[in-house]
Amino acid sequence: MTKEKVALIGSGNWGSAIAKIVGSNVLKSFDFDQEVRMWVFEEIVNGRKLTELINTEHENVKYLPGIKLPESVVAVPELLECVKDATILIFVVPHQFLKGICKSLLGNIRPDAKAISLIKGLDASASGLRLFSHIISEVLDIEVSVLSGANIANEVAEEHFCETTIGSRQKDDGETYFKLFNTPYFRVTVVDDVAGVEICGALKNIVAIGAGIIDGLRLGENTKAAIMRIGLMEMKRFACSFWSGVREETFYESCGVADLITTCAGGRNRKVAEAHVATGKPFDQLEREMLNGQKLQGTLAAQEVHEFLKAKKMTEEFPLFTRIYQIVYEGAPPQAIVEGL
Amino acid sequence: MTKEKVALIGSGNWGSAIAKIVGSNVLKSFDFDQEVRMWVFEEIVNGRKLTELINTEHENVKYLPGIKLPESVVAVPELLECVKDATILIFVVPHQFLKGICKSLLGNIRPDAKAISLIKGLDASASGLRLFSHIISEVLDIEVSVLSGANIANEVAEEHFCETTIGSRQKDDGETYFKLFNTPYFRVTVVDDVAGVEICGALKNIVAIGAGIIDGLRLGENTKAAIMRIGLMEMKRFACSFWSGVREETFYESCGVADLITTCAGGRNRKVAEAHVATGKPFDQLEREMLNGQKLQGTLAAQEVHEFLKAKKMTEEFPLFTRIYQIVYEGAPPQAIVEGL
Repeated sequence: MTKEKVALIGSGNWGSAIAKIVGSNVLKSFDFDQEVRMWVFEEIVNGRKLTELINTEHENVKYLPGIKLPESVVAVPELLECVKDATILIFVVPHQFLKGICKSLLGNIRPDAKAISLIKGLDASASGLRLFSHIISEVLDIEVSVLSGANIANEVAEEHFCETTIGSRQKDDGETYFKLFNTPYFRVTVVDDVAGVEICGALKNIVAIGAGIIDGLRLGENTKAAIMRIGLMEMKRFACSFWSGVREETFYESCGVADLITTCAGGRNRKVAEAHVATGKPFDQLEREMLNGQKLQGTLAAQEVHEFLKAKKMTEEFPLFTRIYQIVYEGAPPQAIVEGL
Repeated sequence: MTKEKVALIGSGNWGSAIAKIVGSNVLKSFDFDQEVRMWVFEEIVNGRKLTELINTEHENVKYLPGIKLPESVVAVPELLECVKDATILIFVVPHQFLKGICKSLLGNIRPDAKAISLIKGLDASASGLRLFSHIISEVLDIEVSVLSGANIANEVAEEHFCETTIGSRQKDDGETYFKLFNTPYFRVTVVDDVAGVEICGALKNIVAIGAGIIDGLRLGENTKAAIMRIGLMEMKRFACSFWSGVREETFYESCGVADLITTCAGGRNRKVAEAHVATGKPFDQLEREMLNGQKLQGTLAAQEVHEFLKAKKMTEEFPLFTRIYQIVYEGAPPQAIVEGL
């Protein structure tokens, strides 16, 4: 049996935390080649190349400072060199780069490779909404699984106990990914519902905007819990309505209820929404003022989901998503959030 | 058709908040007699009888100050006078008083009366664990429904939007209770799973102890969300293992996931557990120091559930409940909470 060879496409905060786990796990199992190549978009940090820093200091000093990476993790600045001979491609890049990366990979990966996507979000285009796992699978014609959960990167990197969910259609793939990702502090559950797992990660930030609005209105814990619960139900209904094979139980997994709890407790979507209520400033202004160039995922997802539902004349079947859209984009008062729920 | 006549057995913080809702709803429907009698354990407050204060000021100045009650709510110091002619008995008393009250009621209520219990907890005795709704039903031989949800009394009284869950076996009863309790700010969902709804309310405080331990350990939002999720799954497994007719969907209702979120965000169980980690003081000492005579529900429930599981040799199937018991009662270190999950 040939060993699985892992390539990590991405090296940001989450990618680096995952590199620590994967780089450690490949050393513990005969199933894996002991080198994990990590694609690093080259940049100069403190006068040195980031790849060089990672390969000598064994630390991503820019995106995950203070955390040592296993020496099995090798930073590579060339994408195609990174994926050469790889049988497992881990995608953990900002979603706007995905299509370009897939185009570069086409014809340059092993035909028997498989992929697992850690990318959050949905792809919206004129033809509707698509999952990033479907895009990877379509462009590269390979099997794609997903990983999503209540996983703040720094807390995972510090080995604080948490869980995650892997959605994988093939039983063998699920077992391989379990070996690759599970640790005593990062507990993996494998389910066969790829779409359900991925949609949770895409929609939770809409609900976090709602939770932040409640925090801003100072309505208290009852109301916030109600909004989170209703949000979880709309996430479930949305997934079950528009994708086949989605299972209700997926929303009880780490990717569902737990990630929603984490995202509504902290996080920038909640914070900016709270500030919107406190200051009355529009979301795009607060995004510029508070996020230092980063983009809000929740407002974008709210818009994409709204356009999709509007085209299907189904906005009123998702009253919370619709209210949040109206508050963010149409100047509806924050108090409107509980109307019609 | 005769009108339903409502008696409210209890007038504490939650009982008074419910009196406001019920007292208002009976005035809006022809189905109900327009008087709601509320049993008040007589005491002297500021030199006046509490019943007299409630009936003249229309405010429970001791247990829900600052909130006006509808004039339809009439405080009555005699239990049997309160329930005379009543067709609906709402039980909202501390659980330690329930058996005595039921004994007093026996033979003194209408045979066609029905009850709804808002009491939280489980009854532990040598013969095992029993639901309070079952005790009421057994002693009085009447149909008993339950109400439970993410409902902090003061927030409900201030009309902040929230949801609640009613478990009722009879469709007609469910419809009656919906009319009696639902308002635009207090949204009722009726399910036919009485045991599931009630068990959620009894077990959530165990999980809140766990959440407080994580807060005390400063492990962050990932770990707290994982503990809450695992706790919800143990609540579900416990209910499904030992009571028949429990439905998985119940745990997605307000009584399940939403009440758990509220309880793990604030509340005294969470707070005392956090203090235990910070100070190293035992729970019973902190209970005395921090709660001003009130009792912790979570530690009591943890003990009752543990004795029950131990007798069935099933503690290891509920690792989180078991770890929490060991930390509270056997001096296990707080860090042990994530072991074996």
